[in-house]
Amino acid sequence: MQKLTLKKIAQELDVSISTVSKALRDSHEISKDTREKINAFAKLYNYKPNNIALSLKNRKTKTLGVIIPEIVHHFFTTVISGIEKVANERGYNVIIGLSNESFTKEVINMEMLANGSIDGFILSVSRETQFLKDYHHLTETIYQGMPIVMFDRALPEVECDKVVVDDVEGARKAVLNLISHGCQNIAIITTKDYVSVGMLRTNGYLQALQESNISMNEKIILKLDDKVNEVEHMNLLEKEIKNLLVKNPEIDGIFAVNEIYALSAMKEAQKLGKNIPKDIKVIGFTDGILSKYASPGLTTVSQHGKQIGEKAAHLLIDRLENEHIDTPFQTVVIETELIERESTF
Amino acid sequence: MQKLTLKKIAQELDVSISTVSKALRDSHEISKDTREKINAFAKLYNYKPNNIALSLKNRKTKTLGVIIPEIVHHFFTTVISGIEKVANERGYNVIIGLSNESFTKEVINMEMLANGSIDGFILSVSRETQFLKDYHHLTETIYQGMPIVMFDRALPEVECDKVVVDDVEGARKAVLNLISHGCQNIAIITTKDYVSVGMLRTNGYLQALQESNISMNEKIILKLDDKVNEVEHMNLLEKEIKNLLVKNPEIDGIFAVNEIYALSAMKEAQKLGKNIPKDIKVIGFTDGILSKYASPGLTTVSQHGKQIGEKAAHLLIDRLENEHIDTPFQTVVIETELIERESTF
Repeated sequence: MQKLTLKKIAQELDVSISTVSKALRDSHEISKDTREKINAFAKLYNYKPNNIALSLKNRKTKTLGVIIPEIVHHFFTTVISGIEKVANERGYNVIIGLSNESFTKEVINMEMLANGSIDGFILSVSRETQFLKDYHHLTETIYQGMPIVMFDRALPEVECDKVVVDDVEGARKAVLNLISHGCQNIAIITTKDYVSVGMLRTNGYLQALQESNISMNEKIILKLDDKVNEVEHMNLLEKEIKNLLVKNPEIDGIFAVNEIYALSAMKEAQKLGKNIPKDIKVIGFTDGILSKYASPGLTTVSQHGKQIGEKAAHLLIDRLENEHIDTPFQTVVIETELIERESTF
Repeated sequence: MQKLTLKKIAQELDVSISTVSKALRDSHEISKDTREKINAFAKLYNYKPNNIALSLKNRKTKTLGVIIPEIVHHFFTTVISGIEKVANERGYNVIIGLSNESFTKEVINMEMLANGSIDGFILSVSRETQFLKDYHHLTETIYQGMPIVMFDRALPEVECDKVVVDDVEGARKAVLNLISHGCQNIAIITTKDYVSVGMLRTNGYLQALQESNISMNEKIILKLDDKVNEVEHMNLLEKEIKNLLVKNPEIDGIFAVNEIYALSAMKEAQKLGKNIPKDIKVIGFTDGILSKYASPGLTTVSQHGKQIGEKAAHLLIDRLENEHIDTPFQTVVIETELIERESTF
């Protein structure tokens, strides 16, 4: 006998997982007909939509569920090491699920873990969730009494505890640093706008230019898809960066919103015979092991991933252990720090 | 009400988790007195030692549990990406637990996940488990009917499906490559012997020397603790490598059993004014993103982590879906490949 899940109901009735989930909580976004069909099916096969509330009543698992978009970015692994540290100190286990940047996988993973395995979530939402702007699985979980702490990619639309980086300020400081080193034609390599942190860092870049009276040049703003874990994408990334540098030889500074973009930019610039930092100065975001071992060493905005993880774990465990106190939600901003290496001076 | 776990019984009775686990299956390694005490306690509080068997009877979760020693090594993240790929294709979810190289955390994580959350395990054992040689949590899980696929750090003592790298052969080929490039004084930077893959790669190194009639020099065999995720350890690592190079200036080749050791060796050698590859040629193991971005690019033995993960997931799902067929256990060896970059020629 297989357990009935949202996914199976969706497959059986040939609708999306999101539709099933919404229909089960009687959302008026779903037609009455579909809602009735889905609820009848769920009832027939004894599916319990309120399994979170049920499982919460019965026991504490002393386990935290962590959902991250991907495991290849060094940033997420450092956040996890921070979560693990605090969880161990306070007597909790940690289990991790990956959304692979997919909305559907995020929903499925949350359903699976919320079903009695964990006491609460620490999560960073997937690209697709941000793109679709469908947050019902998050609000529903919180509504049923299971706390969520969001980190990094936090959503203003969801009310919960959050740990975020001062992305705008971190990017602003980085670009001001490039300007103070004499750069006048500073390119930005960033993600598409629907990725919240990419947009915030782009805003910081624009602010720094504005307050330094440097006019924005759209030709040197490169917005890429944030898929660094696929070989084809890495090749495309390198091609687009090369293109940017060849078409705009006046570029004398590059601000990249992550480590991979920054290193690819250095590599492509070097291939074109440019000296770093003499001809082009480069600053990245995220202080990972790549930045340290790069040649020249990469100046970066450090996000303090470990501290983000530690703070998120403290917030979640505090809320779990004080469940009868109606503490207001907090948003904790972890300051960034500019770590200067050889790519800028 | 909190669920009773091995950990809580251990805390309550002031014994180790391993003792509790062994006592509950009536192991004669534990004194009769202690066994009786633990079993009485478990009975009193209604602890079910055979929860795996019970949960297996009741349902399939369509979820695979993955336990890895740590998340900072790029190798483990690539294995996970392979597991995720095949699991998604075949309709399974994946949840991940970290042992942080600790035996106790490995046991706790396995207990937590086996308790109804998953159908089977894919795992690489912790350093401490290898050191203690205590495998009862693995054999017990298999005995209760939940399949395990071990990868990378596989144990001959545990009968199950395994996916391993040809560590000996990979190391042998790497060292023969250094010799073919003219190196005569080849150092190895490896782990302590209880880490199985470190020992196997050291064996490959010794084989290559022997068949080339180069006598082993113990002074240039450096065995380190494999804790790359701690800053203090990184510093110690660099100090020990520097020491090795200063005391043995005749070293003209270095074979390192992982990427971090190899990059640290290059860095320290460069600091001492050595040119790579002219003065010292370096080969690492694991073809991660670090090797690609290093300067010079690092020649490495690629372990094909993604393929290891894919194969492990196929083996586990095949076994789960053919439970009535008594298939013999398989050990699949994934071939390594030498990827030559600028650190050797």
